[in-house]
Amino acid sequence: MELILANPTGFCFGVTRAIKELENSLDTFGKVYSIGSPIHNPQEVKRLQDKGLVVVRSAEEIPNGSVVFVRAHGEMPEALRIVREKALLIIDGTCPFVHNAQEKAKFLIDEGYDLFIVGDPEHPEVKAILGAVSNKGTVINDLDAINRYGSINRCGIISQTTQSKDFLGSVVSGLVPFCNEMRVYNTICKATLERQDAIRELASRVDGVIIIGGKNSANTSQLSLIAKQEEIPTLWIEDSEELDPDWFSEKNIIGIAAGASTPDWLIKKIKLILEHR
Amino acid sequence: MELILANPTGFCFGVTRAIKELENSLDTFGKVYSIGSPIHNPQEVKRLQDKGLVVVRSAEEIPNGSVVFVRAHGEMPEALRIVREKALLIIDGTCPFVHNAQEKAKFLIDEGYDLFIVGDPEHPEVKAILGAVSNKGTVINDLDAINRYGSINRCGIISQTTQSKDFLGSVVSGLVPFCNEMRVYNTICKATLERQDAIRELASRVDGVIIIGGKNSANTSQLSLIAKQEEIPTLWIEDSEELDPDWFSEKNIIGIAAGASTPDWLIKKIKLILEHR
Repeated sequence: MELILANPTGFCFGVTRAIKELENSLDTFGKVYSIGSPIHNPQEVKRLQDKGLVVVRSAEEIPNGSVVFVRAHGEMPEALRIVREKALLIIDGTCPFVHNAQEKAKFLIDEGYDLFIVGDPEHPEVKAILGAVSNKGTVINDLDAINRYGSINRCGIISQTTQSKDFLGSVVSGLVPFCNEMRVYNTICKATLERQDAIRELASRVDGVIIIGGKNSANTSQLSLIAKQEEIPTLWIEDSEELDPDWFSEKNIIGIAAGASTPDWLIKKIKLILEHR
Repeated sequence: MELILANPTGFCFGVTRAIKELENSLDTFGKVYSIGSPIHNPQEVKRLQDKGLVVVRSAEEIPNGSVVFVRAHGEMPEALRIVREKALLIIDGTCPFVHNAQEKAKFLIDEGYDLFIVGDPEHPEVKAILGAVSNKGTVINDLDAINRYGSINRCGIISQTTQSKDFLGSVVSGLVPFCNEMRVYNTICKATLERQDAIRELASRVDGVIIIGGKNSANTSQLSLIAKQEEIPTLWIEDSEELDPDWFSEKNIIGIAAGASTPDWLIKKIKLILEHR
């Protein structure tokens, strides 16, 4: 069995940066709090928890005088306000590309555009972007919804950083006939685009693709979707115990790809297991 | 045989306005010059020529001291400069929607965007828009061309006023992945959109559609294209002699639609002939 790794794959700039900051903080302070998972990879989060990370569900749960890490997806302003009151120190792990999307959203609102955010309304990044504009925006994750908005005078659009470019394209294409003016900031990050292109390229060369990444990871979900669109057998796993032996039958060349929040050590571990099958 | 007229159809606001201005000028001055056809309907232009309109091919051909009509599609700045030197009087028949597209193109260039004009590079309206920005723009009439532009930092888009909204949608959708920022002014005029919707609605109710309009008319060409997309037998004619008797066999309900530059008298004439078949 031949193995081919997608290129690039795994940790992106924003996640690498966030994890470095978080590990430095853990080394210095021993205990660091995060509201929700700092990144969307349960295995990496488990590793960090073993080093002192404490994941809580809301800002209210953070004890006074704590060191608090703001996760890569950014945080809602209400939560940040509470954290600012309670924390000894705040380590901002917000990905600069996410921060840019928030700034573009604010700019569009300030300029008088009706704001549309292409993304998943349940994703923390999208919630934080909406929070940054006091919820003055509409999240689009469904093309059918477009016909419900009616005519829009000035339409401002940004995207969740991990969306697919095809979906962003479909949304702008669907909305433009209803708009007098449309202003789009393509805030899909380069890492996302590169990983999406890489899996398309990989799919053309292999008999099946193993995608390693958190089931809660938006960008990993996009990789899986693209692999399926390319009509290549796809196995999305978080860890090695999900490597179903039946899946490998009659496959000679296997591609491996990983989400932007999948750590290198996990990719290496899976690769090693596959090499010794 | 039942006849159903598309609603709305025929003369739009801009053409009605242009023809009124031109007729007033002909009534007053007897002879009025126009560079190229004032509207894209040979039959209506013939009627106006009989009243004193003189269509020339370039500004150079206009005699000194003439009354000059600027056609509905607008005129190139170089030609306008020559006309300004020579003319006794200039009657500006430029459609206000075309003028708006020119202004939006200038604005986008002034704001530092790379300008793309969705339209036909050979159409006088598109040439006049390009002229208004000293040719600092790229005309797109072919989706395949999009992949040739590479990445664009700030992408400004306007449309020829008579384009189809679907094609504009396809262009913005195709370009957005390559752009950091995209700003679109949807300059397709309301009359165009309404006539396109009207023919779609008509197509669902008839056995065939007769489209009346100049073969050089961009908006009529879009109507014909839409009718064909709706898979309805379509006969595009300029005048009654093109009413092929064979086309009518086994058709009980006939739809009639006309381009935005097709005069009422011509639509009525065709309708009368069909009523007496």
